[in-house]
Amino acid sequence: MRLAVLLASQRPVNIALLGAGTVGAEVGRVLIEKQDVYARQLGRPLNLMAVVVRDTSKPRKGIDSALLTTDAVKLLDEAKLDIVVELLGVEFPALDWIQMALRNGKHVVTANKEVMAKHGPQLLALARENGVDLLFEASVGGGIPIIAPLKRDLLANDISAVSAIINGTTNYILTAMAREGADFGDALKRAQELGYAEPDPANDIEGEDARYKLSILASLAFRTFLPRDDIYREGITRLTARDFRYAAELGYAIKLLALASRVDGGIQARVHPVFLPVDAPLAKVDGVLNAVQVEGDLIGRVNFQGPGAGFPTTSSVIADVLDAAQTVIGGRRASHATEDAPAHVVPMAALITRYYIRLTVSDKPGVLASIARILGDARISIASVIQKEVHEASNTAELVIMTHEAREASVQDALKAVQDLPEVQEIGNFIRVEEQ
Amino acid sequence: MRLAVLLASQRPVNIALLGAGTVGAEVGRVLIEKQDVYARQLGRPLNLMAVVVRDTSKPRKGIDSALLTTDAVKLLDEAKLDIVVELLGVEFPALDWIQMALRNGKHVVTANKEVMAKHGPQLLALARENGVDLLFEASVGGGIPIIAPLKRDLLANDISAVSAIINGTTNYILTAMAREGADFGDALKRAQELGYAEPDPANDIEGEDARYKLSILASLAFRTFLPRDDIYREGITRLTARDFRYAAELGYAIKLLALASRVDGGIQARVHPVFLPVDAPLAKVDGVLNAVQVEGDLIGRVNFQGPGAGFPTTSSVIADVLDAAQTVIGGRRASHATEDAPAHVVPMAALITRYYIRLTVSDKPGVLASIARILGDARISIASVIQKEVHEASNTAELVIMTHEAREASVQDALKAVQDLPEVQEIGNFIRVEEQ
Repeated sequence: MRLAVLLASQRPVNIALLGAGTVGAEVGRVLIEKQDVYARQLGRPLNLMAVVVRDTSKPRKGIDSALLTTDAVKLLDEAKLDIVVELLGVEFPALDWIQMALRNGKHVVTANKEVMAKHGPQLLALARENGVDLLFEASVGGGIPIIAPLKRDLLANDISAVSAIINGTTNYILTAMAREGADFGDALKRAQELGYAEPDPANDIEGEDARYKLSILASLAFRTFLPRDDIYREGITRLTARDFRYAAELGYAIKLLALASRVDGGIQARVHPVFLPVDAPLAKVDGVLNAVQVEGDLIGRVNFQGPGAGFPTTSSVIADVLDAAQTVIGGRRASHATEDAPAHVVPMAALITRYYIRLTVSDKPGVLASIARILGDARISIASVIQKEVHEASNTAELVIMTHEAREASVQDALKAVQDLPEVQEIGNFIRVEEQ
Repeated sequence: MRLAVLLASQRPVNIALLGAGTVGAEVGRVLIEKQDVYARQLGRPLNLMAVVVRDTSKPRKGIDSALLTTDAVKLLDEAKLDIVVELLGVEFPALDWIQMALRNGKHVVTANKEVMAKHGPQLLALARENGVDLLFEASVGGGIPIIAPLKRDLLANDISAVSAIINGTTNYILTAMAREGADFGDALKRAQELGYAEPDPANDIEGEDARYKLSILASLAFRTFLPRDDIYREGITRLTARDFRYAAELGYAIKLLALASRVDGGIQARVHPVFLPVDAPLAKVDGVLNAVQVEGDLIGRVNFQGPGAGFPTTSSVIADVLDAAQTVIGGRRASHATEDAPAHVVPMAALITRYYIRLTVSDKPGVLASIARILGDARISIASVIQKEVHEASNTAELVIMTHEAREASVQDALKAVQDLPEVQEIGNFIRVEEQ
């Protein structure tokens, strides 16, 4: 209660959303739904002041219709507005509105890869001139943290290469082609049916989307400006089921990679399908997942993987909003120790998981029945039993039991009882199963 | 030159190193070696003021012996000292010196997992009271950015679980056991010979090291304090070659996981060997690599992988130093656009890589010889040729050629000449090979 009173007495950090499409509506909804959590983290409430849309009569789930407005220009001039979140997903009017916001001294958070790839340097300079932040974590890799790590965590390195799978649509199609021997056309059609590819998929399958994102990543990594037009581009449309078959035979996966590296004389940057050795970490990134691999002089090679689009993008957008809000408040970054109460730790005995149990038993009838009875009495149900390696000399056999989910305490008790059976020579091992 | 003059006229950011062991000496060396790069990034030089060691007579590679001192207490009281980098690797005197530094208003960067796991909350509170930063990216996961992403990029999430492979020694041993069918003792011995395991390996193989790191990660992720003694711990010494054989048969890998998750009633936290489905991302993390997987309500699942120890730790330590230095300077975070010159992009024609070429040719003698001659003339050497799928009806065959490294321009020219051969029906595809 005291916290609530304290927070209510403080001026909130005011936020405006430009756009309420898929990501925009989700960001709005989460900012409202989790306002108490974020207020506690910041020590100051976040207030969603307005949402700019084209049509205010259309209802937006989880967002009060009173917040909707069509007048961006007036909103961006509001003195009390602190942070502008641009989620229009197209170049115009996003570019104009971002410039307007920066000139008016507002911090800007954007997920707009096109605007950042084309106009990043000018916009970042404009932000600096006006003493505000321009944050764009969500413009590449959806929810994966990659922009902030490049700006902060990898800053000590001279980066030599960035290799990335940064288009979920093409990676989904290539994964289907590899797994099912599908041809490109069929795989694309199914991706469209499942909503993983647009009705007009050209931007994705021709590598243009990946090129925007590589332009942003490489500009950051190499501390320069790499215009997207300077990036060589080839799409995935020429690939056939046969190429995948031969690739597999030769020990390779086929992926659409976005690659930028320092070479003699400059930077080499390209987006095209590649043969990747099946053991390479990026060869194992399947479906709509994205991954970015960075190589630096100090770190060697580091890899970031996660969902590259859709709802998880909200995580990156709001991380940027919280960062900008901390700058507005002017305090230090929120520390994890703000809630000082120690954790309530659940005892190991309460764990519920599956178990692998390996036993050495006398090789005679009825042994398994005795063990099964003990497990059954402890409500541990058996998923499978394999009898292994009968040793004629000692007249023993090895049993491998996989259980269904059971409670650790029950398993420990049951194993003690099993150990006491005269037919059981030894419990060789038991290992918990982690389904991920 | 102008930059050098400008930088020289400004007060440097003064740094002291506590400890010059493996990581300490590397950090010192890199700070000196890359001082120009870092000065450009910060707009202010970093100055390594002193290095505290036990024995000043022992030479440290790349570090001027005049910088060495044994008097930490006097150094930590120096008014002009800004940042203290603690790399002692043991609890004492590290804890005392960190407290002293914080009380004296110095920012502290530490790689000390033991100190952070045992005393993190008090030290962070002390840092707050004194208005300085305490940064500890290097305490978990070596060079992998994970602390800063948890503090910043994932802040919008309610985190439900952290699963991690955070001990390189045990992961190296488990990988050897899985790949070679080795027994624990043999795998450990070899890890020791190769320097991947300590002469006294107890701390690693019993899971104690992983427990320290999980304590730090889980405390951050769940915004609480999870003492390491509350974490269930089991080492890898009980595992046998047989367990690995059965695991493989059943479709699992065996890994030492550090796991913390929110469950009804609190947090469950444990370090023990697990069966992981072979397709799980963490099941594919082999050798001395580390990986941390985080699950949150917005992001779903995100994965950070990289080198978990040794030299790459320098990357994390210096990232924290640069971050603290920016706080000292008081300016905005360095932006990637500081060097405005556009990138010099090397043309695609200059690419050197290997190529996969698929051709449909007339099924008659001499065809391969003609193609090989053209490639040879263009200095493209063939690594392998496979003849595939002879079509009796059309009297054609498919050839799959893998080249050694060649220049893109030469390959393009050669393919044109190949295309013009009367025996060549079609160049089905050519795909660049990316060896990673």
